[in-house]
Amino acid sequence: MARIALGVEYDGSDFSGWQIQKDGRSVQATLELALAKVADHPVKTVCAGRTDAGVHACAQVVHFDSDAVRRNRAWVLGSNSELPDDVNVCWAHQVAPDFHARFSARSRRYRYLVLNRPVRTALCRQRAWVVYPQLQVERMRQACVHLLGEHDFSALRASGCQAKSPVRTIHTLEVARRDEWISIDVCANAFLHHMVRNIAGLLVRIGKGEAESDWAREVMLGRDRTRAAITAPARGLYFCGVEYDREFGLPDGAASARALGLLPGGQT
Amino acid sequence: MARIALGVEYDGSDFSGWQIQKDGRSVQATLELALAKVADHPVKTVCAGRTDAGVHACAQVVHFDSDAVRRNRAWVLGSNSELPDDVNVCWAHQVAPDFHARFSARSRRYRYLVLNRPVRTALCRQRAWVVYPQLQVERMRQACVHLLGEHDFSALRASGCQAKSPVRTIHTLEVARRDEWISIDVCANAFLHHMVRNIAGLLVRIGKGEAESDWAREVMLGRDRTRAAITAPARGLYFCGVEYDREFGLPDGAASARALGLLPGGQT
Repeated sequence: MARIALGVEYDGSDFSGWQIQKDGRSVQATLELALAKVADHPVKTVCAGRTDAGVHACAQVVHFDSDAVRRNRAWVLGSNSELPDDVNVCWAHQVAPDFHARFSARSRRYRYLVLNRPVRTALCRQRAWVVYPQLQVERMRQACVHLLGEHDFSALRASGCQAKSPVRTIHTLEVARRDEWISIDVCANAFLHHMVRNIAGLLVRIGKGEAESDWAREVMLGRDRTRAAITAPARGLYFCGVEYDREFGLPDGAASARALGLLPGGQT
Repeated sequence: MARIALGVEYDGSDFSGWQIQKDGRSVQATLELALAKVADHPVKTVCAGRTDAGVHACAQVVHFDSDAVRRNRAWVLGSNSELPDDVNVCWAHQVAPDFHARFSARSRRYRYLVLNRPVRTALCRQRAWVVYPQLQVERMRQACVHLLGEHDFSALRASGCQAKSPVRTIHTLEVARRDEWISIDVCANAFLHHMVRNIAGLLVRIGKGEAESDWAREVMLGRDRTRAAITAPARGLYFCGVEYDREFGLPDGAASARALGLLPGGQT
């Protein structure tokens, strides 16, 4: 029995999210069906970060177990030939049996994209949140400082969030502008449900000038979701990378995200 | 009677192209229907550059005549509320009656996007041509030199091209790499049918090392389409801008294209 890790990219627009559900088309079920055909046996996958309906991934990481003997390249080509065109495998890598896509992850990275202009966009309609008033990036950056580090993020988690603890550690949180595009890049040990979209909603409100940058601190300390800003729409969110210990020998997640030219701004 | 110019953006994936056809969903018919509702009378549009099925536009320019009295902003908001989500109006500007979207255009700009990597892309599946072998950008740049200036482009026009003369003038032709993305930016007084996609096919062949960069010159001199390279797929092509005399007072087309973050590399 071997454990295989996969790098997976998907357009979340027509998926009900990562997780298998009774109704709706999930990335997980779609991927497991394709892998089962390549493996010749049923396959169960575990992912690094479950994404909601409409959320995209450039660098989701998944693992599964199989007794089928296949080269890494065969897993990639075989599953891609079975997958629909809105999800694909980027790489496959046989890993040690103690590797776990979720529990071995040291940190995850997401990018949120805002298109800051007065009119909607046909070309990127499922790829960004269009916000009209001119956003003040410097104010947004000042707000980020209050979110960095270990905090109780109760004010920025969805009401239905299943996590036992609301404490998470944000390692980096960066806002960058390139022309009309604004990117919000966040790296944390892990994320609560809707946490990135709630951070995006908070930062956009401050960027609009509807609240001071210090309001981010108040919201955090209040630990009350109902006193924060709106949840930014799913279509602007991208799961961009996962960090594991080097000993697992996986391809660099950052490289996958950087390669996606549709993610302007930022440093990755 | 007033003449109105519009900046139009569309995702070409589900259109049969710009031009009205007996069968198929055209951008022109879709736009004219929306404008007719705003104008309260039938509207006929003329565009700067007709695009084929699958070709995108960030900055198409269109004009039409109307005796309806509307502010520029009302044309934008009104038509966008009537348009489907894969086409939108970016700006409207009342112009002098001698303005003509096609005949007043001094030059047009297109961008072609290649994603240079071994696996397909779910997120950009209708936005780029995925080419596997590592492309040598320096070779492609050397080939560009042979295409610059005024030439008979018979070798790079579609067999069904309706233009009277095969002579066009390429002002700039630039190839840039950013990570796995390669952009080909071309500005010319006008283009023949399939000219940009044939240039992209030619440059990619040279970039792969299947032909020397001097082969571009041979192809041009031969004026024989059958001896050139393949036509690159429509999905990687973007109509990015039109230049008019400043006296018409239109918004800068380059700005529209630059704003589109999904167009990496290049200078625009």
